[in-house]
Amino acid sequence: MSAFDSGNQVLALCGGIGGAKLALGLYRVLGPQRLSVIVNTGDDFEHLGLAISPDLDTVIYTLAGLADPERGWGRAQETWHFMDSLRQLGGEAWFQLGDRDLAMHVERTEWLRGGKKLSAFAAHAAQQFGIEAEILPMSDDAVQTIVDTDEGALSFQHYFVKRRCEPTVRAIRFAGAAESRPPARFSELITGTSLQAIVICPSNPYLSVDPILAVPGIAAALATAQVPVIAVSPIIGGEALKGPTAKIMAELNILPTNQSIAAHYGGLIDGLMIDEADSADNLEVATWATRTMMRDLADREFLASEVLAFAETLTQKKGVRHAGRRR
Amino acid sequence: MSAFDSGNQVLALCGGIGGAKLALGLYRVLGPQRLSVIVNTGDDFEHLGLAISPDLDTVIYTLAGLADPERGWGRAQETWHFMDSLRQLGGEAWFQLGDRDLAMHVERTEWLRGGKKLSAFAAHAAQQFGIEAEILPMSDDAVQTIVDTDEGALSFQHYFVKRRCEPTVRAIRFAGAAESRPPARFSELITGTSLQAIVICPSNPYLSVDPILAVPGIAAALATAQVPVIAVSPIIGGEALKGPTAKIMAELNILPTNQSIAAHYGGLIDGLMIDEADSADNLEVATWATRTMMRDLADREFLASEVLAFAETLTQKKGVRHAGRRR
Repeated sequence: MSAFDSGNQVLALCGGIGGAKLALGLYRVLGPQRLSVIVNTGDDFEHLGLAISPDLDTVIYTLAGLADPERGWGRAQETWHFMDSLRQLGGEAWFQLGDRDLAMHVERTEWLRGGKKLSAFAAHAAQQFGIEAEILPMSDDAVQTIVDTDEGALSFQHYFVKRRCEPTVRAIRFAGAAESRPPARFSELITGTSLQAIVICPSNPYLSVDPILAVPGIAAALATAQVPVIAVSPIIGGEALKGPTAKIMAELNILPTNQSIAAHYGGLIDGLMIDEADSADNLEVATWATRTMMRDLADREFLASEVLAFAETLTQKKGVRHAGRRR
Repeated sequence: MSAFDSGNQVLALCGGIGGAKLALGLYRVLGPQRLSVIVNTGDDFEHLGLAISPDLDTVIYTLAGLADPERGWGRAQETWHFMDSLRQLGGEAWFQLGDRDLAMHVERTEWLRGGKKLSAFAAHAAQQFGIEAEILPMSDDAVQTIVDTDEGALSFQHYFVKRRCEPTVRAIRFAGAAESRPPARFSELITGTSLQAIVICPSNPYLSVDPILAVPGIAAALATAQVPVIAVSPIIGGEALKGPTAKIMAELNILPTNQSIAAHYGGLIDGLMIDEADSADNLEVATWATRTMMRDLADREFLASEVLAFAETLTQKKGVRHAGRRR
């Protein structure tokens, strides 16, 4: 039994920057040892011989209060002397690695090379940084998000960072997903009695949440969960707010609406949290409209409280032991 | 044919800090493309998954004008944010890696993992930093300096950095030396007609120069060289100036005198450069006494000029094609 089985746990699924904001809100509203976050690792890659897990690190830095508030990724008060020297040496410098941040990659690479699991390192790093939430990679097995584009198949970081999301997306797939397994703690949480709600954070559904759902067992666990599953929509005022979501939706011929998001998560969720600027028309799933923009810490805590209140109403509707769900 | 075959080449053998000072003096006095430095790599080790070559880097940073003038090792204007984070993560923090310096280790590790040779990386790094001298590792094969002490056999960095030279030295050996080969360029230089002199820098004879001489072919090449071979003594005023030399000599029951140094290099050298404070009595090798202390750049250039002047006199004595040498 984990320290995180004290009861009334919340499980959040998230990607990087946008999702981590809500994870932080939930962490602060719930208090210590009540939040477990399962994080996308489809963006993980090896670069300069180092094992890099961008979303895991963003979640860890965010929950530890160490994240850079402007960029959203990497650490606050970061310096870039390593990158300067790397450029002097003619090294591959398209991926920014801050001096403070580098320790995470070097140490993680050592752990993995020593035969330890990514989940063990994530737990270790979270503990070293004083985080009292559980941070779980979606899998200890390698799953690679591949973006099929008009320039060919690109690895996520190649598409996202090196090519700045410029190529036109034709499809997104997750290499290795079929053979991957969720971490043991995920099954424990899902089958245990301490779970109160599951939250899909407002990360990019196609690039950041889908890889998590592609790990066998995770989507099925959401579909049959006995606790409410809530997705927070990344759409605000009819637009996808963060990063390349809108561009990707357009390229995949998906309208940037809550109807699209609801359809995408259809069968997995009991409720969709939408922005107050958007209409709930034609949504077959239960909705809760509120201010979903997260500019500052107060916004994050506010949205987290709203999510928990929404979960509370859905719990009453769903009953403690509901039989199933459409799909 | 290398750009370094233009004629009147000087080949220097050196370790880290002390030796690099004279290498810099020679580089400045000789001018571009006349100096080749063969550097100790017995101190090389893998740490945090990174291939670290302390002496090579010290020589590169020194000749590039990037070395920290106070410490002697590492880069000037260095920052230590990586180390701070590594400690936060509970990583192995006994070996100091500066933020700027890290790029060298990460990039070198990438080159080696990609199947490239250490000598190729050293040449690349030297070129990127604008160094117009040739910097050669003593071998592309792994040779490990092992210090047998009262605490057991310690790798060099373990003895030197982690244990701060505190254990009593019983013997020093060079694992892998018998199977190692000098770089191809060394043989080219030695057998070519462009070489003017060979200089053993005032590095620690036992820890920094001996590993070089342990690479099969290097000592033999010095013993039979047709150009003068000069060692610059690390003894000043009857004391070993730098680092642990005096302590090691005492533990190995060797008196800290020029007689000991001359005996140590006996058969390999034509001349011993000694400090003006020391006596040339009882030295069977040709000597040249001068100010060997190198506090600033002017000192380094002065000593380099003296070495070259000494070489000139020995060339006249030795003749262009001398038959051999004692031993």
